[in-house]
Amino acid sequence: MSQPASVPQPFRAIDVIRKKRDGIELSRGEIEGLVNGYTKGEIPDYQVSAWLMAVVLRGMTRPETAALTDAMLHSGEVLDLSSLPAKKPARKVDKHSTGGVGDKTSLVLAPLAAAAGVTVPMISGRGLGHTGGTLDKLEAIPGFNVNLPVADFRRVLATCGCAMIGQTAEIAPADRKLYALRDVTGTVESPYLICASIMSKKLAEGIDALVLDVKTGSGAFMKSEKDAAFLAELMVETGERMGKQVVALITDMDQPLGNMIGNALEVVEVVGVLRGRGPEDLRELCLELAGWMLHLGGVSKTVAEGKQQGARLISSGIALDRFRQMIELQGGDPRVIDDAKRLPQTQHTMPVASAKAGYIASMQCEQIGTACVILGGGRERKEDSVDPAVGIMLHKKVGDHVDQGEPLATIHYNSDAKAQRVKQLIEASCEIADAPPASRRRLIHRVIGGSK
Amino acid sequence: MSQPASVPQPFRAIDVIRKKRDGIELSRGEIEGLVNGYTKGEIPDYQVSAWLMAVVLRGMTRPETAALTDAMLHSGEVLDLSSLPAKKPARKVDKHSTGGVGDKTSLVLAPLAAAAGVTVPMISGRGLGHTGGTLDKLEAIPGFNVNLPVADFRRVLATCGCAMIGQTAEIAPADRKLYALRDVTGTVESPYLICASIMSKKLAEGIDALVLDVKTGSGAFMKSEKDAAFLAELMVETGERMGKQVVALITDMDQPLGNMIGNALEVVEVVGVLRGRGPEDLRELCLELAGWMLHLGGVSKTVAEGKQQGARLISSGIALDRFRQMIELQGGDPRVIDDAKRLPQTQHTMPVASAKAGYIASMQCEQIGTACVILGGGRERKEDSVDPAVGIMLHKKVGDHVDQGEPLATIHYNSDAKAQRVKQLIEASCEIADAPPASRRRLIHRVIGGSK
Repeated sequence: MSQPASVPQPFRAIDVIRKKRDGIELSRGEIEGLVNGYTKGEIPDYQVSAWLMAVVLRGMTRPETAALTDAMLHSGEVLDLSSLPAKKPARKVDKHSTGGVGDKTSLVLAPLAAAAGVTVPMISGRGLGHTGGTLDKLEAIPGFNVNLPVADFRRVLATCGCAMIGQTAEIAPADRKLYALRDVTGTVESPYLICASIMSKKLAEGIDALVLDVKTGSGAFMKSEKDAAFLAELMVETGERMGKQVVALITDMDQPLGNMIGNALEVVEVVGVLRGRGPEDLRELCLELAGWMLHLGGVSKTVAEGKQQGARLISSGIALDRFRQMIELQGGDPRVIDDAKRLPQTQHTMPVASAKAGYIASMQCEQIGTACVILGGGRERKEDSVDPAVGIMLHKKVGDHVDQGEPLATIHYNSDAKAQRVKQLIEASCEIADAPPASRRRLIHRVIGGSK
Repeated sequence: MSQPASVPQPFRAIDVIRKKRDGIELSRGEIEGLVNGYTKGEIPDYQVSAWLMAVVLRGMTRPETAALTDAMLHSGEVLDLSSLPAKKPARKVDKHSTGGVGDKTSLVLAPLAAAAGVTVPMISGRGLGHTGGTLDKLEAIPGFNVNLPVADFRRVLATCGCAMIGQTAEIAPADRKLYALRDVTGTVESPYLICASIMSKKLAEGIDALVLDVKTGSGAFMKSEKDAAFLAELMVETGERMGKQVVALITDMDQPLGNMIGNALEVVEVVGVLRGRGPEDLRELCLELAGWMLHLGGVSKTVAEGKQQGARLISSGIALDRFRQMIELQGGDPRVIDDAKRLPQTQHTMPVASAKAGYIASMQCEQIGTACVILGGGRERKEDSVDPAVGIMLHKKVGDHVDQGEPLATIHYNSDAKAQRVKQLIEASCEIADAPPASRRRLIHRVIGGSK
C-alpha cells in the first residue's frame, strides 16, 4: 500500500527484494542493511533466498557487487597483519583458484612465494562437487592442523611467511550463512554472488594483492571461457574498487592439472614439483602464478623475473624447506616429504587399460573429478568424511599416444565396487582418436588485470 | 555434483528451482511435487520463495499455469455442490473482481443472479492494500456471519440460491500458505501466480462457469490495459483448460466505481442499485456482469437477454428480496435495507470543497482508496481491525462540472487528524480543468473469452 511520501520509512527487506526484482540498482545502504540484517538473524531465510534468486536473474552492477563484497567482508573480523615483521618491499599476497580437478598449486605456491619473501596468509576451502579442496589435501599429511586459532595463524606466518588454514567463525560470517542458503535454493550459479563470496573472504585476510586462477573447461565450474572471463573481470574490478591489486589468469581445466587426483597422491606430486620434477603443466602453471605473486608482492620487477626467481628457489631446495617448515609449524609430520609411504596408502591399486590404440583426443574432466569423489576422495554429501588415500594416477594426458592394453590410469582404492564404477567412468571419459589432436589447448588463456 | 544417469532420483525441490531459474518448462509432476510438499510442510519457505521469484522473473507457460492452478485447487477440499436441488437448466456460476475502489458489485450480483435461478456459491476476500473487500462490506451489516461452516453454506445456497462467505481452512490451503509467503518476499506481482491464486480458489467452489471482472486504471492492481488483458487471457485459458466456462471483462478503474467508498456506505449504495436507483456506472456494470452470469448460467440465451432479465428482477423488487433473505439466513439484520441508520454511522462528516471551478479531468483512484484506508476503512497492517462506518461519498465524478467551493466529496470519519490528511489527499487526487475531458473512458474496455 502506498504511504504518504513525507513519512520516513524504516529499512524493509521487502523493498530491497522488490527493487532488485524490478531491475533497479540497489544503494550501498540497502545492500548493507540486507547483509547485516541476515547475518544478525533479523531477516529470515525466505526473504534472502527470494532476493538471491532476483540477483541471479537480474544481475548486479559493478557498484552493487563491490557493496555486497564489502558488506560481507565487514560482517566479521578483517585480519590486521600489519604487526607482522615487515621485510620491505615484500607485501602480503594470496592466490585463489575457482576450483578444478588435480589443482594442487596452492600447496606449491604458499611456501614458494614465502621463500621469496612474500607473506602468504592463505585461508582455503574444502572440496566442492567434483573439485578437490586445499584443506582436504593438507589433511592427508598426518597431524596437519588446518584449524589454527588466529593467534597461531599469525605466529606461523611470522615464522615462515606462509600459513594455510580453513575458514574461521570470525571471518566473513555473512558468506558462510549466505553460501549455505544458496546451496539449497539454486542460487549458487551467479558470477556476482560467486565474486562477492570469494573476494569477501580473501580480502578479509588483510592482503595487499591477490592472484586469481579462474578455471575454464570441462572440469571447471565455468565451462565456457566467456563465463570465466566475465567472472575474472568482475573479481579484478571489485578488488581494485576496494584498493587491492588483483590479477586473474584464465587457465585450462579441460583435463586434470598434473597427473595425480586424490588428496595424498596430490601431496606426493606437490613434493615432486618442489623438487624441480613433476608434470610439465603443473610446474608451468605454478611458476606462472608464482611469477605474479612475486611481482605483485614487490619482490620482482616483472612477472618474468618472478618466474625465474621461483624456479631458482625450487632448484635450490629453499621452497621445499619452507614447505617442510610450514608442515612442522602446523603440527604435521614433515617426514612425508622424504618418505611418501608415511602418507595414507590404499589397500589396492588397479590399472585402467586402453581398449584401443590411438591418441587421447579429449578427457571429460568433470567425470574424472567425480570418479575421485566416488572412490571416497571427496564428499557426495556435506557430512561425508574423506578417504585421503584414494585417487587416480593418470599415465596419459590429452595428445599422448596410447597402445591397446596400455594403462591410461591407475586407480588407488579401498572398495572393489567403487573401483569398478570408477574404471568404467575413466574409460568413458577418455576419447581416443586415430590422429593426435590438431592443436593443444594453451594452459594459460588470458590474463586480466594485474596493473600495479 | 553429477550423478550417473542410471540412478533414479527422488523428487528434489532444488532441481525444480534450478529448472525454473534456467527457463526450462516444468512438468505437471514437478509442480505438484512442489505445491504438495510445501502444503505438507516438507519443503521449507526459503526454497519456495526462491522458486516463486524465479517464476516472477521467468514466467510460466500455459500448461505450467494450469498445472499450478490444479495443484493448488486440489491441495484441499473441492466443494461438491451436485446435491443441491437442481433447477435445470440453471447452473452454478460465480463472479470475481481483481479488486478496485468502490467496487461493490458482488453484493448486487449474488442475489440478482440467484433471483434469476443461477446458483452463486461465492467465496470472497478482504480488502487488500487500497482496495476494498467483499467480506468487510458484508460485515458492516450487523450480525452478518461470513464464517459459515461448509454445511451451513450449503444450506443457505439451497434455500436462497446464493451465499457469501470467506476462505475456509479446507479450501485451497496451498494458496493461503503461498500467498502469505508471496506477500513478504516481493512475489505477489506475477500474472501467473495471481491467476493460479484466483482460479484455484474459485474452481474449488465447484462452479460450472466464472465471470471475471479484471480492473484496469489508476485504482487497479493492473494499471495498464495490456497487463489487465494479459491476466484476463491467462485466467480464461486456465479455466477453459480445466473444463469451465470463463469470461473476463476488462473494466475501468480510473476512478472509483459508484459514489460510495467505505464498508457501510457501500452497503447503502448496493441497496440503492437493487432498488433500481444508484449511480449510473455501478448500475451499468452490475447489469453487464449479471447478463454474463445469467447467460453462462444457462437461464438466458444471450448476454443482452440476461441484462434485460436482470433489470426486470431489480424493478420488480425480487432481487432486493433475495438480498434480504440472504442477510437473514447468514445471521445479519435485514432491517438495514429499509433503515440505513441501523448500519454503523460515524460521529462526524466533513465536506471537501473544490478550490476552483471547472471540470473534473481525472482522479487518482488509488489515492482515494488509500484515503479510505487511512480513515480506518481498510487495513494498513494485516492485524488491524476495520471501522465499518468511515468512508468517502463522492459528489463529483470525472467529466462533471464543479463550482468553486462546491463539495467534491463528504468524508465520514471518527478521527479529526485522519480526516485532515484525507481531505488533503482527496483535494490532491482530483484534477480540475477549464474544459471537460475530450472523451470519457468507456466503462467496459474489452470482453475476453465467454464462448460456451
